[in-house]
Amino acid sequence: MDLGIHGRRAMVCASSRGLGRACANALAREGAAVVVNGRTAADVAETAAALEAEHGAEIIPVVADVTTAEGRAALLVACPEPDILVLNSAGPPPMPFSRIDGEIWERELHALMVAPLLLLREVLPGMRRRGFGRIVAITSAMVKSPHALMSLSHASRTGLTSVLKGQSRHVARDNVTINQLLPERIDTGRQRELAEHAMKARGITWEEVRAEQIASIAAGRLGTPDEFGDACAFLCSAQAGYISGQSLQLDGGSYEGLW
Amino acid sequence: MDLGIHGRRAMVCASSRGLGRACANALAREGAAVVVNGRTAADVAETAAALEAEHGAEIIPVVADVTTAEGRAALLVACPEPDILVLNSAGPPPMPFSRIDGEIWERELHALMVAPLLLLREVLPGMRRRGFGRIVAITSAMVKSPHALMSLSHASRTGLTSVLKGQSRHVARDNVTINQLLPERIDTGRQRELAEHAMKARGITWEEVRAEQIASIAAGRLGTPDEFGDACAFLCSAQAGYISGQSLQLDGGSYEGLW
Amino acid sequence: MDLGIHGRRAMVCASSRGLGRACANALAREGAAVVVNGRTAADVAETAAALEAEHGAEIIPVVADVTTAEGRAALLVACPEPDILVLNSAGPPPMPFSRIDGEIWERELHALMVAPLLLLREVLPGMRRRGFGRIVAITSAMVKSPHALMSLSHASRTGLTSVLKGQSRHVARDNVTINQLLPERIDTGRQRELAEHAMKARGITWEEVRAEQIASIAAGRLGTPDEFGDACAFLCSAQAGYISGQSLQLDGGSYEGLW
Amino acid sequence: MDLGIHGRRAMVCASSRGLGRACANALAREGAAVVVNGRTAADVAETAAALEAEHGAEIIPVVADVTTAEGRAALLVACPEPDILVLNSAGPPPMPFSRIDGEIWERELHALMVAPLLLLREVLPGMRRRGFGRIVAITSAMVKSPHALMSLSHASRTGLTSVLKGQSRHVARDNVTINQLLPERIDTGRQRELAEHAMKARGITWEEVRAEQIASIAAGRLGTPDEFGDACAFLCSAQAGYISGQSLQLDGGSYEGLW
Repeated sequence: MDLGIHGRRAMVCASSRGLGRACANALAREGAAVVVNGRTAADVAETAAALEAEHGAEIIPVVADVTTAEGRAALLVACPEPDILVLNSAGPPPMPFSRIDGEIWERELHALMVAPLLLLREVLPGMRRRGFGRIVAITSAMVKSPHALMSLSHASRTGLTSVLKGQSRHVARDNVTINQLLPERIDTGRQRELAEHAMKARGITWEEVRAEQIASIAAGRLGTPDEFGDACAFLCSAQAGYISGQSLQLDGGSYEGLW
Repeated sequence: MDLGIHGRRAMVCASSRGLGRACANALAREGAAVVVNGRTAADVAETAAALEAEHGAEIIPVVADVTTAEGRAALLVACPEPDILVLNSAGPPPMPFSRIDGEIWERELHALMVAPLLLLREVLPGMRRRGFGRIVAITSAMVKSPHALMSLSHASRTGLTSVLKGQSRHVARDNVTINQLLPERIDTGRQRELAEHAMKARGITWEEVRAEQIASIAAGRLGTPDEFGDACAFLCSAQAGYISGQSLQLDGGSYEGLW
Repeated sequence: MDLGIHGRRAMVCASSRGLGRACANALAREGAAVVVNGRTAADVAETAAALEAEHGAEIIPVVADVTTAEGRAALLVACPEPDILVLNSAGPPPMPFSRIDGEIWERELHALMVAPLLLLREVLPGMRRRGFGRIVAITSAMVKSPHALMSLSHASRTGLTSVLKGQSRHVARDNVTINQLLPERIDTGRQRELAEHAMKARGITWEEVRAEQIASIAAGRLGTPDEFGDACAFLCSAQAGYISGQSLQLDGGSYEGLW
Repeated sequence: MDLGIHGRRAMVCASSRGLGRACANALAREGAAVVVNGRTAADVAETAAALEAEHGAEIIPVVADVTTAEGRAALLVACPEPDILVLNSAGPPPMPFSRIDGEIWERELHALMVAPLLLLREVLPGMRRRGFGRIVAITSAMVKSPHALMSLSHASRTGLTSVLKGQSRHVARDNVTINQLLPERIDTGRQRELAEHAMKARGITWEEVRAEQIASIAAGRLGTPDEFGDACAFLCSAQAGYISGQSLQLDGGSYEGLW
């Protein structure tokens, strides 16, 4: 299926590893020029080289922290007029609600919610003017099913979701879509981090944690980064222009709610 | 993007016209062998010939009414082991709640809900045994936002939705996914029918109705059948195996709810 | 809190036992004249006598099966102009999807969905004309979180929900509200039935099933019929006139979804 | 209906006016000892006196800004062990997304989301220990249906919602419930503020704005503060202990979504 985005410019935040990299990879494969971004120069360089080698795509490596004004400025200098924007950030650690003080709240709300919105604010007017935009936010399944230990993650991301939804209706007329992908247990470093956290916190083995992770998924397996990247590429396609304001769960069919 | 369904067998109900045809077309383009089905022999033959000519695909024409036991039997004789099943049926006319008696309820519930479930029941065990299945139900945006005049449509389809959701969690382990597409104002004969209904009922012109239809969509346009078909093809792809139980709206970003 | 429904006429379907009785009891306590209905004369008489004795309320006993045209006619003869209507019906047995044939579907869809809608159709115009109506449907938590074994229940009830929602927006202007209560494990005969079904099907003891039922509820207990009845009475109150189209879960805080 | 909260201690934030006052009033009427709180001494004194006079209730006036650490400390000194907590704050002005910079985001997120969570954090452990707690957050209908001009409001409040939902499941076992009321066009000063904002921004008259406000509500009228207060009192009642994690809309039946 031709996704109609050959030559489009895609800015993929936090794409040197994990889910962001999977999205960058799928977009590069479809012929988009892709901004590969991360905070660690070596990771960015490695990912950029790998995507270039595999897809012959134009890759624009940007070492920058998207949660800072400087980082966002660097991204916009490298790619002033993106057609595609994938919002992504590293997730916070699990933490009981009772331990989250004002400072922690403000730090994480900034990183996971305010920073992506400030980047979006820079990018949206140009997309509307040019009559094409595809925005995908990578959030979390917990946006729909909050968990007591993950307040920092889902508070920020559900807040982000609501702004994106409000804007999606506002910019639809200009062929700019805004959608959200809700991953649950995609097999990346994040799942390994959470597993290691659980091993320490509960004194259980890697195999036990892993079995629990798998048992929590109706499909009986973790998802693959490639499955995730392809879903992102589809939502960024030309022919997805009538799909907006959607929250698509990639959770192996686990969510219990009707929607 | 390679959808990984070349050679798969796809049964697409009510696919001689409209949204069903758009799905059949996209699946044939991706190399699936496609059952084209409808009640009118000439329509089925015309669509089958067109898809064959355009895509060089294997097309299996089946003239049958999927709302009857005989019709479902004919489909299963022609394609006993489908890998992909697209459930689709003609929508009922708008009707005030006060005019819907028991007989009308039972007829429409049968056509829009019971009949597709009886077909699904035949197909599901084989998909699970073979370890691959992609089921997509075409319903309506009204499943999420019911309208007083469309009770017959959304009652049946929301009921169908809930059974599909319950089953989706149950069969996920066997690499069988069940999703739903919720169209709103895709530019097919159905929109023209509804427009003609409104012209008669309210004494307004084609241009007036059409302007109203467009004004009701945040994107400021109707969707195209090809956009719809490609979304269906994506949900039927090999790489969509981690996506199940989802209700994806194709509504030009119009729905007001967060989800 | 004065609910402002003293002297109102309340028709409560299937109210000789269980959740329906709890609603009838709360409404009688608030001074409404209540139709107590059931299929078994002795149960109806016993409940009617008990409510009369406890609350000194006017009770109108009607032995009738609301799933039949005769039963609905008997209810309307006994109470031609209800101000309050509580829709309720006995739930179907758990059954695997693969065993549900067309006949079973049609029987249960009629009992759980078509029959209440036909009763509603009779009652709604008068409520609108008189400028007061409170309609509450008792459905099930599974309307929001469908379960593979309970297709008969949630298909019918989710379909019912969607019609009620569509109508709720249509009749709001006439001070007629339509809401829904979604019980999960309220301690009635229904939970005992389901427990006995599980004991037989899985060869486990009463204590084991009961412990499972309790463990499935975040509150760590079953709900009481009185809690349920009071929620119903509140939604039927004069001051609940600005609340309509809502699906209120009484599930001890168990549902995982944000809404 | 006896709500079973006579003698309970209720802390109602921002209750000298508007929706908060309506809640304080209903709780005082039911015999709770109520903390009346606001930033303006005269308003607090006037409301406290009025509730005392009308209900003979114990009223604890606290002049304090709940968005500051000092304000929260003052509330907790005045009422160290509340049984009931109503979270409420003044809403932010409408503002286009393009004009919201980092500083504005952080100020409003703090006021509408972080501050109430920090107060909740102080109160929750005691409620759990004592085995009784009723928490109600007053947010906005926009939590479910975001609007492009109200990002500041719904971002904060949807984030808040998700934390409350996660915690509600966690504390249900201790007879602590957490619910949310979503008002839409209740006839308070807030609606007059929004109307005046619209009059200036769009050059239209009071009557025109008011007609628009009314036309946006399915019930064809604004809601009354008393209706709102009574819904709050019901969710704070002893018999609402099995209801938690719910988002109850008071919107005159306007919301289009099934839920």
